[in-house]
Amino acid sequence: MFHTPATLVFLAGDASGQLRLPFEMLLVFGAAKALDELFERLHMPGIVGQILAGVLIGPSVLGWMQPNDFLAALAELGVMFLLFRVGLEVKASDLMKAGRTATVVAVLGVVVPFLAGWGLLSLWGEPRIESIFVGAAMVATSVGITAQVLAAKGLLQERAGKIILGAAVIDDVLGLLILALVSSMAKGEVNILEIAFSAAFPIGFTVGALVWGTKAAGRVIPRIQEKLRAGEAQFSAAMVLLFALSVLAVYAGVAAIIGAFLAGLALSGSVEHRVHNLVQGVTELLVPFFLVGIGLHFNLATFASGSTTVLALLIVLLAVLSKFLGCGLGALRLGRADAARIGVGMVPRGEVGMVVAQIGLSLGVVGQRIYDSVVFMSIATTLIAPPLLKIAYRDVMRSKSAVREDQPA
Amino acid sequence: MFHTPATLVFLAGDASGQLRLPFEMLLVFGAAKALDELFERLHMPGIVGQILAGVLIGPSVLGWMQPNDFLAALAELGVMFLLFRVGLEVKASDLMKAGRTATVVAVLGVVVPFLAGWGLLSLWGEPRIESIFVGAAMVATSVGITAQVLAAKGLLQERAGKIILGAAVIDDVLGLLILALVSSMAKGEVNILEIAFSAAFPIGFTVGALVWGTKAAGRVIPRIQEKLRAGEAQFSAAMVLLFALSVLAVYAGVAAIIGAFLAGLALSGSVEHRVHNLVQGVTELLVPFFLVGIGLHFNLATFASGSTTVLALLIVLLAVLSKFLGCGLGALRLGRADAARIGVGMVPRGEVGMVVAQIGLSLGVVGQRIYDSVVFMSIATTLIAPPLLKIAYRDVMRSKSAVREDQPA
Repeated sequence: MFHTPATLVFLAGDASGQLRLPFEMLLVFGAAKALDELFERLHMPGIVGQILAGVLIGPSVLGWMQPNDFLAALAELGVMFLLFRVGLEVKASDLMKAGRTATVVAVLGVVVPFLAGWGLLSLWGEPRIESIFVGAAMVATSVGITAQVLAAKGLLQERAGKIILGAAVIDDVLGLLILALVSSMAKGEVNILEIAFSAAFPIGFTVGALVWGTKAAGRVIPRIQEKLRAGEAQFSAAMVLLFALSVLAVYAGVAAIIGAFLAGLALSGSVEHRVHNLVQGVTELLVPFFLVGIGLHFNLATFASGSTTVLALLIVLLAVLSKFLGCGLGALRLGRADAARIGVGMVPRGEVGMVVAQIGLSLGVVGQRIYDSVVFMSIATTLIAPPLLKIAYRDVMRSKSAVREDQPA
Repeated sequence: MFHTPATLVFLAGDASGQLRLPFEMLLVFGAAKALDELFERLHMPGIVGQILAGVLIGPSVLGWMQPNDFLAALAELGVMFLLFRVGLEVKASDLMKAGRTATVVAVLGVVVPFLAGWGLLSLWGEPRIESIFVGAAMVATSVGITAQVLAAKGLLQERAGKIILGAAVIDDVLGLLILALVSSMAKGEVNILEIAFSAAFPIGFTVGALVWGTKAAGRVIPRIQEKLRAGEAQFSAAMVLLFALSVLAVYAGVAAIIGAFLAGLALSGSVEHRVHNLVQGVTELLVPFFLVGIGLHFNLATFASGSTTVLALLIVLLAVLSKFLGCGLGALRLGRADAARIGVGMVPRGEVGMVVAQIGLSLGVVGQRIYDSVVFMSIATTLIAPPLLKIAYRDVMRSKSAVREDQPA
């Protein structure tokens, strides 16, 4: 009877959110940053620490935090801002120069994992359509994790980084086509004309945003600050473009984060340095929610049955190897070192694989056991990529710090 | 049958959020900034334009957007960051210097509106307890709007600005006591000892954070950047303090935004300029959600009955006058100009009045008609304050721009 006013406020329905919001922000952000720091001290990637923070506070271990709509929305905003910021640091012309290699990387990085997933599940004795769905779920790279690792180390401007980004955009369009194809197969009606027609949209949107975006922004953005009266007008215009291209991307059929990336790319040549700083603030706040959100979905129960465990581990192994080999082969003409970096950078599947598996589940062609394995694969590839990237970029980091030590302090 | 993949993704439950999130961000942020710009061009406060953007897209006019949990959470985060940023710009020592005047302003600014609300409703023939609740709902100033107006014009460092901030903190503690008192009355059991006891917490928390916060931050913050390995460590530490003090504030019984303000205040002397920029980015993104959120709750149906309309308008008039006179009287020794600025700056009631009315509603002592009137009063005082502030600060703005013109470009 002590806390009368607080208790009363809690009782008042809406007002109970008063404690929940700051508490969730504190727990998620605080846990992410604590494990980030711990992992950096142990010379492991901080990003892995942040994902494991989600596993730790989530339902599998401590159970302090359940996945919920609010955290999911912050996570989605977080990865949108992450890709927007990455786009801001890259020039569209540089990306297009990497176009040919990126296309080969993307195509091989889609075909090899698709066949590998299909083949494995067929050998395992699963039905044909379920096997094809697992193949489709292994296709789409989710570039958020790689982009975060490379951006944090200042490696986005290296050749391999640009090819990874370009290939990730093409990969997303190809993944969409594969998804359309297998979904029609699951419903027993494959209409090639319809699929070709609906492919025109995402391709048209991506190419259009890439080709005209930078030009249009270059004309409009510099005039915004002088013409508009409201404060921080360039930042506001950048936010409107970010959200508008994200909406259009989803309408066109690709992921919202591809729209966010293209918005950043369009603005990279024209916005002032201040806008970069303001975007960085939002990104720093929200990215931990994206990383912890991945960890929150980790489900230890997947390993209750021995045969599922073996299958899940095999799927993870194959997902890593097939993407690494497919993309690496596509980039082999750049030399072994860059090919390895690109192969490793394309490994994380993130939430895209989960969405494919979910569609299969909702269509009734994928069972719960396979669904759990695919979700585990998405999280595991995301966790494996940062340490592999650290190894693949070891030489670059060493020469970078050598250059820094050469310069006078 | 054209958009097969997109439609499929929409069907997949969770994935339907793909469109909703960027769409809501685009609509709310875009509408806020469009009306911000329009109002600035018409020489009216942009902040009023942003609130009216919420009225426009909300259920009362176009109906494009309903209030929902996600927008409410972003709005709450927005006002927390707003007060945090305001705290970052103020020194705790300056605020304590303003302490004596701020206390007189706060006390008179609580007593006069309370008596005015109680008196009006009693004269109107409402029951005693309902009248007292309306008095209580008229007490608490919500300083967000005033802080945003003053921060945008660079007026927080003026004497009146600091007194408004100090008085708002004290006002929040007093409002809590009044709420505890009337809630006990509504339940028919007033226990003075219990109320005094539960008052010790918020007062202790506020004074403690004010007195020790700056000292502690001054010792810890400068060492963070050198000791921690994770990137942007000062920003991360600032965020953790922000969320932690917001949680503690709610536990102590005051609003989360008071905790956010005290966190900013504690850090104002010690964090690097870069942290200010990063916080500014988050604030710029989220504050429009706070402002539009106010507008979304505007309910035209309040004016369906003539007698409710008259009562609602009388409550608004009395809310403005009583706060203006009470606070103005408390600051009269600073001269008429500053007293008027302080009186006007304390007028907005924001969401605090709504929470009080909601508690009355949930206890069954306040009717729907009175509840609607109080919500309308909260929104109306928020809308009225920015233009009144513009008038009250006319002279300061004129001499500021004169100084600017005197200096060589």
